[in-house]
Amino acid sequence: MALPVETFFLHPDAQGTLQQQIQQMIAQGILSGRFRQGEKLPSTRRLAAHLGVSRITVTIAYTELLANDYLSSKGRSGYFVSANAPTPPSFEPLTERQDAVDWSRAIGQRFSGGAAMSKPQDWAKFRYPFIYGQADPTLFDHANWRLCALQALGQRDFSALTTDYFDRDDPQLIEFIARHTLPRRGINARPEQILITLGAQNALWLTTQVLLTQRRRAALEDPCYPALRDILSQSRCHMTPVRVDADGIPPESIPPDTDVIFTTPSHQCPTNATMPMERRHALLNRAGEMNALIVEDDYEFEMSFLKSPSPALKSLDTDGRVIYVGSFSKSLFPGLRLGYLVGSEPFIKEARALRASVLRHPPGHIQRTAAYFLSLGHYDALIRRMGSALQDRRAVMEKALAAHDLRISGRGYYGGSSFWMRAPDGVDTDALARRLHGKGVLIEPGRPFFAGSHQPTNYYRLAYSSIPSSRIADGVGLIAREIRDFG
Amino acid sequence: MALPVETFFLHPDAQGTLQQQIQQMIAQGILSGRFRQGEKLPSTRRLAAHLGVSRITVTIAYTELLANDYLSSKGRSGYFVSANAPTPPSFEPLTERQDAVDWSRAIGQRFSGGAAMSKPQDWAKFRYPFIYGQADPTLFDHANWRLCALQALGQRDFSALTTDYFDRDDPQLIEFIARHTLPRRGINARPEQILITLGAQNALWLTTQVLLTQRRRAALEDPCYPALRDILSQSRCHMTPVRVDADGIPPESIPPDTDVIFTTPSHQCPTNATMPMERRHALLNRAGEMNALIVEDDYEFEMSFLKSPSPALKSLDTDGRVIYVGSFSKSLFPGLRLGYLVGSEPFIKEARALRASVLRHPPGHIQRTAAYFLSLGHYDALIRRMGSALQDRRAVMEKALAAHDLRISGRGYYGGSSFWMRAPDGVDTDALARRLHGKGVLIEPGRPFFAGSHQPTNYYRLAYSSIPSSRIADGVGLIAREIRDFG
Repeated sequence: MALPVETFFLHPDAQGTLQQQIQQMIAQGILSGRFRQGEKLPSTRRLAAHLGVSRITVTIAYTELLANDYLSSKGRSGYFVSANAPTPPSFEPLTERQDAVDWSRAIGQRFSGGAAMSKPQDWAKFRYPFIYGQADPTLFDHANWRLCALQALGQRDFSALTTDYFDRDDPQLIEFIARHTLPRRGINARPEQILITLGAQNALWLTTQVLLTQRRRAALEDPCYPALRDILSQSRCHMTPVRVDADGIPPESIPPDTDVIFTTPSHQCPTNATMPMERRHALLNRAGEMNALIVEDDYEFEMSFLKSPSPALKSLDTDGRVIYVGSFSKSLFPGLRLGYLVGSEPFIKEARALRASVLRHPPGHIQRTAAYFLSLGHYDALIRRMGSALQDRRAVMEKALAAHDLRISGRGYYGGSSFWMRAPDGVDTDALARRLHGKGVLIEPGRPFFAGSHQPTNYYRLAYSSIPSSRIADGVGLIAREIRDFG
Repeated sequence: MALPVETFFLHPDAQGTLQQQIQQMIAQGILSGRFRQGEKLPSTRRLAAHLGVSRITVTIAYTELLANDYLSSKGRSGYFVSANAPTPPSFEPLTERQDAVDWSRAIGQRFSGGAAMSKPQDWAKFRYPFIYGQADPTLFDHANWRLCALQALGQRDFSALTTDYFDRDDPQLIEFIARHTLPRRGINARPEQILITLGAQNALWLTTQVLLTQRRRAALEDPCYPALRDILSQSRCHMTPVRVDADGIPPESIPPDTDVIFTTPSHQCPTNATMPMERRHALLNRAGEMNALIVEDDYEFEMSFLKSPSPALKSLDTDGRVIYVGSFSKSLFPGLRLGYLVGSEPFIKEARALRASVLRHPPGHIQRTAAYFLSLGHYDALIRRMGSALQDRRAVMEKALAAHDLRISGRGYYGGSSFWMRAPDGVDTDALARRLHGKGVLIEPGRPFFAGSHQPTNYYRLAYSSIPSSRIADGVGLIAREIRDFG
C-alpha cells in the first residue's frame, strides 16, 4: 500500500530544520504505528511539492532514515517502510480511571507546600523584568560555551561524557577548582575535600542531611534564601532565625546551643550586606567557643565589581569548621545546575556517599564543558564583562531610585545584581507585585525571605541582572507610581 | 618587565588544540598571579619558535586573549598583560593543619559504608571486560548525539539551556515521553504524571523518600540491584528481601503488611528473569489485597531483541498503584544521568517538591538534547543496532559458556546484556574476580546483590555489553580455567 501524501504534514510550530522535521514526522509515524512495514512512501518529488520544500531536503531526510533502517529503498520503485523498522506495541494503553489508592495515607512524607518560588516562566516577555537569577542572553558568552560543549562532546572526551563515575567527579573540573578557583578565594583544598553538586541548592541540601538531625539546632540568617528554610524544615532540626543587620549575621545573637550556622558573608541574600573582616573573625571565634560548624554560601562573590571581594570565611578557618558552598549556576546560568562543596574529608566523604545514593553524580558532559570554559579563561572574561554591564545598570538604577525617592534598604557596597528595597509601611509588596505584573513590571516581594508568621510585608527586591539599562528608568517610574497610589 | 619566553611551556599531556593550550597557559599565568599587569609578553615569533608551533597559532591565541581583555596591545611594541586583566587574590591560602572539629560527633547522619560498587574506572584498559553498564564506544551513536547536543546549544534553545525551571522540566522531553515512549510500553500518562530524574537511581531514591518511613515496610527482590538496598536502608524502613525464582518475585512470598513492593518485571536484576503475564496479574492482585504500592523499575526492557517486550506492569494497573521508573542512562550511557518517574498526580507532586528541594531540576541542556535524539528517531535506531550487536555477542557467549561447561543460572529469554552465572559450590567469586583481574579479565562477583549476612558466594555476572565478540571465547576460557583451578 502507498501512504497517501495527504497524510504528511509539518506542524507550523515545529522546531529544527525542515529536513529534521520531515525525518521526525516519518519516524514518529512509524513509531506510533500509523505507517506500517512495507508501506510505500510518496516519492521525494511528490512529498516536496506537497510540503512546499525543496526536493533535496526530502531526499536528505529519506537518506538519513534509510541509514537508520526506518526506510528501505527498492531501486527505481522508491522508498518503503523498512522490514526492520521498529514495530509499535500491539497492546492498547488503558484509559484513565479513579485511583483505588488512598494517597493521603500512601504518602509517607510530604515535601510540597514549601516557600516555592513563583517566578513567571515567561519573564522574558515582560518589558520591565526586575527579576533575579535568570540568564541575560545579551551578557552570557553563549558562543564560547557552545564551543566548549562541542569540544567536550568530541571523541577524545567520550569517556568523560559517558562514564558512570559512581561517587566520583570529572578530575579535570576538580583540579581546576582546587588549583585556580579556590586559591582566588584564599582557600587551599585537596581534591578529596571537594565535591561537585547540582548547584548550590544541592550543596546546601547534602550538607543539611549530613550535619543535622531532629536533635540538632541550625542558626540561619533572617531574612534568607527561602529554599534554605525549606531544606532545613525537611531535616526537622531546630531552627533559629537570626535577624541580620547592615553587616550580616551578628555573632552574639546566635544561640549558644547551635550546631550549624548558615551564612552568606560575601553577599547576604537578600540584603546584599557584606560581612566586614572583624565580624568574620568574631563569627569564627563564636563558632569555636560553641563548637559549632559554619556553612558559608559564598553567594555572588563574583559580582564584586565595586571593590575586590574579601577572602572567604573558609580562608580564615584554621579549625576545619567552615563548609564552603560555591556555585557556577548563578554566574553562568541557572539551568546549568553546577556547584561544589569544600570541607574536611570526613564531611565530604559522607556528602559524597549521600550524593551517590541520591543521584550518583552530576552529568559528565556538563562537568567537562565547565572545566573547559573555566580553564580557557572564558569564565573570568565573562565575569568581568558582566560586572561592567551590571555596574552601568546599577548606576542607572541608583539614579532612577533617587529621582523617585524610593528607599534602598540594602545596596551592597561591593556590587551585586540587586537592591533590597523597603516600601513605606502599609504597602503590601505581594499586592504591589500583582498590580505591577499587569503593567509589564516584575518585582520580587520580600515576604518569603523572612522567617516566622509575622513577616514584614513592605520589602521587595529589584534585580538588574536581566533588564536592559534603557528600560530601567521607565520601570522604576512605574513602580514609584504604583507605590504612591497604593492603598 | 618582559616575561622571559623560558617560563612558557605546554604540558605534554594537555588537552585541546595548540591554540587553546597557549590561551589557557597565559590565562592561568595571569589568574595565578605569575604574570602581572603591564608585563610584556614574548613576541608571537619568539613564543612560536620556543614552543615549536606555527606563528599563526600564537597570533590567534593572543588575539583571543586580547578580545577577552587578558592582554592589551600597544601598536608595534607588542602585547602586554592588560591593566583590566583579573587580579590574583592578595591573601595567602592557609596551610593545612589538624581539624579542631570532632567529626565523629559533628556528623549527624552517616551515609558511607553502603554496598558501593567497586568497578574499576579503568575497565576499558582490560582485555576482557565482562563488565556491566558502561557505554561501548563502538555501539553508541556518538555522531548523532553530538548533533542533537549541538542543536540544543543553538540560539533558539537558549532558554531551554539556561532557564531555571525550578520544579518543572523541559516540556519537549515530557511531551515526547508521554506521546511516544510510554505508549510503546502500553502506558497512558499525562504530563503532570511524569517527572524527569537524574537516572533511575534518583527516581528510586525520590520514590523511597516519599513513600517510606521508619514505620513502613518495603519488600524487595533478593538478589537485587545493591544500591536499592542502600537507598532503602537510609530511609530506615522495614525491609523484607523476597527470594526470586525463574519468573521473578513470587507474589505469595510477599509479607501481608508490606506497604511498597520493589520489582523489575521486564528483566530481573541480576537474574535476567522476565515475569510472565499471569504472574504480573497475580502480583497486581496481591498488591490490591494488601493495599500495597508497586515500584516497577522497567529495567532493560529496550534490550528485548529475542522477543517483543511484554507490556509494562504499569500498563495493567487500573488502580494507580504502580509507580513506573524508566531510564535513558542505561540504554544511552550512564554518564547522561537521565530517567523518569510515572505515577499518579498526588505522588508525582510530592516527588517533584522533593526533587526541587534536593537539586531543583536535571540540567536543561541534557533534557533538550535527549528530546531531539528521541524525536529524530536516533534512539530507536540505536536500540535496534545495539540489540543486533548484543544478539551476536550473546550467541558467541552461549557457545563459549557451553564449550567450557560453565553453568548459567539466569539467561533471560527476551535478551539483555548479561548472564547470571553460578560457579560450583566452594568457589568464592570475590576471590575469583580478584584473580581474574590480574589476568585482564573483569567479572562481577554476585555477593553484593544478595541481602543478609548469609550471602551466597558462588554467583557472578558476565555482561557482554562492553566486550567485543572476538575476545569473548578467550575471556570465557580464562574464567573456566580459573574456576577449575580454584581452591
